[in-house]
Amino acid sequence: MTEPPLARDLRRLVGGEQVLAPPPQRYLADATEARGIRGKADAVVLPRSPGEVAAVVSYCYEREVSVVPRGGGTGYAGGAVPDGGVVLALERLSRLRSLDPFLWRMCVEAGVTTADVRRLARENGLLFPPDPGAAESSQIGGNVATNAGGPHAFKYGPTGAWVSGLEAVVPPGELVTVGGPIRKDVAGYDLKSLLVGSEGTLGVITAVWLRLIPAPEAALPIAAFYRSSAEGCAAIERVLANGLTVAALEFADRGTVTAAAATFPGGVPRGAKFLVLAEADGSAAAAAELQRNTRQVLLESAITTIAPANATEIMRFWRWRDGISLAVTAQRGGKVSEDIVVPTDRLHEAIEGTLEIGRRHRLQACSWGHAGDGNLHSTFLVTGGNAAELAAAASAAEELFALALALGGSVSGEHGIGHVKRGQLAKQWSPRALELHTALKDVFDPKGLLNPGKKAAQAAKGEQPRT
Amino acid sequence: MTEPPLARDLRRLVGGEQVLAPPPQRYLADATEARGIRGKADAVVLPRSPGEVAAVVSYCYEREVSVVPRGGGTGYAGGAVPDGGVVLALERLSRLRSLDPFLWRMCVEAGVTTADVRRLARENGLLFPPDPGAAESSQIGGNVATNAGGPHAFKYGPTGAWVSGLEAVVPPGELVTVGGPIRKDVAGYDLKSLLVGSEGTLGVITAVWLRLIPAPEAALPIAAFYRSSAEGCAAIERVLANGLTVAALEFADRGTVTAAAATFPGGVPRGAKFLVLAEADGSAAAAAELQRNTRQVLLESAITTIAPANATEIMRFWRWRDGISLAVTAQRGGKVSEDIVVPTDRLHEAIEGTLEIGRRHRLQACSWGHAGDGNLHSTFLVTGGNAAELAAAASAAEELFALALALGGSVSGEHGIGHVKRGQLAKQWSPRALELHTALKDVFDPKGLLNPGKKAAQAAKGEQPRT
Repeated sequence: MTEPPLARDLRRLVGGEQVLAPPPQRYLADATEARGIRGKADAVVLPRSPGEVAAVVSYCYEREVSVVPRGGGTGYAGGAVPDGGVVLALERLSRLRSLDPFLWRMCVEAGVTTADVRRLARENGLLFPPDPGAAESSQIGGNVATNAGGPHAFKYGPTGAWVSGLEAVVPPGELVTVGGPIRKDVAGYDLKSLLVGSEGTLGVITAVWLRLIPAPEAALPIAAFYRSSAEGCAAIERVLANGLTVAALEFADRGTVTAAAATFPGGVPRGAKFLVLAEADGSAAAAAELQRNTRQVLLESAITTIAPANATEIMRFWRWRDGISLAVTAQRGGKVSEDIVVPTDRLHEAIEGTLEIGRRHRLQACSWGHAGDGNLHSTFLVTGGNAAELAAAASAAEELFALALALGGSVSGEHGIGHVKRGQLAKQWSPRALELHTALKDVFDPKGLLNPGKKAAQAAKGEQPRT
Repeated sequence: MTEPPLARDLRRLVGGEQVLAPPPQRYLADATEARGIRGKADAVVLPRSPGEVAAVVSYCYEREVSVVPRGGGTGYAGGAVPDGGVVLALERLSRLRSLDPFLWRMCVEAGVTTADVRRLARENGLLFPPDPGAAESSQIGGNVATNAGGPHAFKYGPTGAWVSGLEAVVPPGELVTVGGPIRKDVAGYDLKSLLVGSEGTLGVITAVWLRLIPAPEAALPIAAFYRSSAEGCAAIERVLANGLTVAALEFADRGTVTAAAATFPGGVPRGAKFLVLAEADGSAAAAAELQRNTRQVLLESAITTIAPANATEIMRFWRWRDGISLAVTAQRGGKVSEDIVVPTDRLHEAIEGTLEIGRRHRLQACSWGHAGDGNLHSTFLVTGGNAAELAAAASAAEELFALALALGGSVSGEHGIGHVKRGQLAKQWSPRALELHTALKDVFDPKGLLNPGKKAAQAAKGEQPRT
C-alpha cells in the first residue's frame, strides 16, 4: 500500500516515529465518546518541540489541511474530536522548562499532565490551585486552552488565573510568546487571555508560565446532608452570607447522591437528598477555625455534618468527589452532562429546572458541581448506545442552555463550546458581540483551519447536531 | 460667536448641559501634566447613561470624529489626553446598579470612583481588593480600562481579576455585554479580558460587574529598614522563599525613603537606605501569626522592623505609602515615572539599573513599588518645566524600557502604553504578535477613532515624542 502524500510529507517534516497514519482510534474521541461522538482524521502527529509544532502548522496552513490540537482528550465538549485533517497531539511536549519554588513559579510544556504540575508544586511546598477532573490524563495545555475549572476555582479562580505567560503557534505557523515569568503586564492587548479558553481555534499552546502559591498548611473538608435541595441551597447561601471564605463549595443533588452513595465514606445517612461539601484551607489554626465556623453554619437544618480530620479520611472524601461523574455514568452506561452557570442565587432554580427538563423528555436527570460558582453539571442519563435517548438528551440540553440564559447565566462554565455546544453562543451574546467573536477568529486563523467548527459562535447553515 | 456644528449637534444629542465647548482645561490632561503633556479637544461630552454614550460614539463614528474616553484623569501614561475630537467623560455614569453583599458582588457604572467602590464594599463587610493610587479621583471604568494594579495586587491580582462582566459601547456605537453577575463563563472568546486594559481604544466601558470577597478581619503591616538595596532585596526574596503569603510586599529605595522621610510614622532610622513594607491579612489570629513570621524573616540583617498594631497607626502607614509619589514629585517639582516589570528575582538589578541610567543622563533617580510583583515605579526627577531635563528623562525612560526587556520583563505593569509609551510594545513583542495586536484594534475600531494613537503597537512614522 502506498503511503498517502500527507503522511509521507509529515514524516519528512518531523520524523517517521512522530506520525501515526492511519490514526489510532484513541486519538479520534474525547470524553464525549460516552454520548456517541467519534471523529476521523488523516494522520496524527506527535511533535517533540514547539519548532515541530510550528513546522506542522505551517505545512498544513499552506496546504489547507485542518489541524486539531489535542491534549489528554478528557474534554466534555468534543473540542478535540477531529473531522478530517491532522490531529496535533501534544503529549510529547512534556518538558519541565523551569521550576523556581522560592519564586512561586514554573514553566512547563503543554503536554505535562495536570497531575504532574500539581505534584511538582506540592513536592516543593507549593500549590497549583486549579483541579479539574481527570488530572492524571488531562494536560496543562488543554487545561489552559479550555480555561479549566474545578472545585477550588471558587476561591482560587480557573486555570487562566494562574497563567502569567504562554507560548503558542499561531497561523500561518509562527511561534509567539506573551507574558512570561512576570506577574504583571499591561503593555499589549490581553492576547494571553484571548488564547486561554480559545479551545485550539486561535493557536496551539506549546508552553505556559504558571504562578504558584505556598501550599496551605491544612485543607479540611466539611460535608452536610439535607432533606431537600431547598434546604441545601439555603445552607449554601448561608455560607456566603456569613462571609466564610471556603476554598471549595460543592453540591450534589438527590440523583447524584443516590448514584454515588455506595462509596461515600462512612455511608450516606437515611433521608439524605442533598449534599453540600465545603473545604476550609489555610494555616492549621485558620483552617480549623474556618472548618468549625462553616460546620456550624451548615449544621442548621442539616441531617448531619461530617468533618473528617485525618489525612486518610480527607483523601477519601475528595476521591469520592472525583468519582461522582463515573458513578453517575455507571447508572445507565451513558450520560449527556452539561456545565451551565447561573448567578449563585439562582442555583436552586437551575437544579430543579434540570429535573423538570428531564421529566419532560422522560430522562432520568441529576446535577452536581460547583455551588459557590453557580456552576452545575446538569446531567441526563442515557442507556449506552440508545439513539432515541441520545436524541432526547440533546433536546433536553438545548432547553438546559435556554434555562441557564433565562436565569442570567452562561451555557458553559468549564467545558467550553467545542463541538457539542456550537451555535449556543448566538443565544447568549448580542449580534455585535458575535460579529466581534467571528472577526477575532478571522484575525488569528483567516483560513479557518485551526480546529474547524469548534467554539463557533453560530452553527453552520443547515448543520445537524451529530449527537 | 456661532457655536461650532459639532458642539451644536452634540447638544441636540444629549442635552445642552452635557456638552462643554470649548473644553475646560481640566479635561485636557492627566497625571502626565507634571511632565508637560497637555492635549486639545473640540468638545467634552458628559453622558448620563450608556444609551447616551452609544449615541455619542455613533454620531462621532459616522462623522469620523475621534472619541477619547476619560475617567478620573489620574493616569500616568497620557491615555486620556486628547488630540482633537470629543472627550467622553464618564463621571456622570455614577449609578450603583446593584449590590448583593450576601452574594459578594456589585454592579456599578464606569464613573463611580474607586474609593466609593471600596467604601460600599467595606460598609457591607466586604473587600474590593484592587487599590491603585488616587482612589478618591480615579474611576472604576478607568481602573478596568487600564487593568489598574496597586500594592494588594500581589496577593489579589489586578483590577481585571475582579471583573466578572462588563458593558461597553463598541464602534460603530453599539452597547455590548459580556459576562455578568456570574463567576465563570467560558462560552465565548474572552472579550471581557480583551476590553480590560485596552485603554479605551477598543470600546468605552460603561458598567462593570465586580466580584468581592469577605473583608479580612485584620490587615497588619510590617516595615523593615535596611542599609542597602542588596540587603532589602534579599529580605524580599526570603519572604517568598519562606512561603509567607503576605497581601502586599512593597519597597522604597534610598532616594524614595529620603524624599518621603519627613512623614514616615515615627521617623526613618539613621542609616536607612531601603524600606520593605509588607502586610499580613486574614482572620485576626492568622494575620497576627503571619505578621509575626514575616517580621522575623524581615528582621535578619534589618536595621529595625516596625509592626504597628492599632488602627490609627496602621492607617498612617498606608497614608504614608500613598503619599510617596507626591513626596518624590515635591523634590524638584516634576518627574518622569515609569512602571516597568521584571521577574521578581531581577528586582535588585532593575533598582540599581534605574540609578545607573539616571547617572548617565545626569538625572536624580529613585524607585519604589510592588516588590512582590517585580513592578517598579522607576523615576527620574526633573525641575518643573525644564525642557532639557524632560528630554533627558524621555531618553532615560527609553533605556529603562530596554532594561526591563533585557531582564525578561515588560515595559508596563500598571500604567499601560497610553501616549507616552507608544511604540514600546514593538520592542517587547515579536512581529507576528504585533500584527495580531494591530488587527485586534482594526476588528473593534476599523476607522481608528477610539482614543487614536494610544496603546499603539508601533509609533506612527516620523512621529516625535511629545515629551
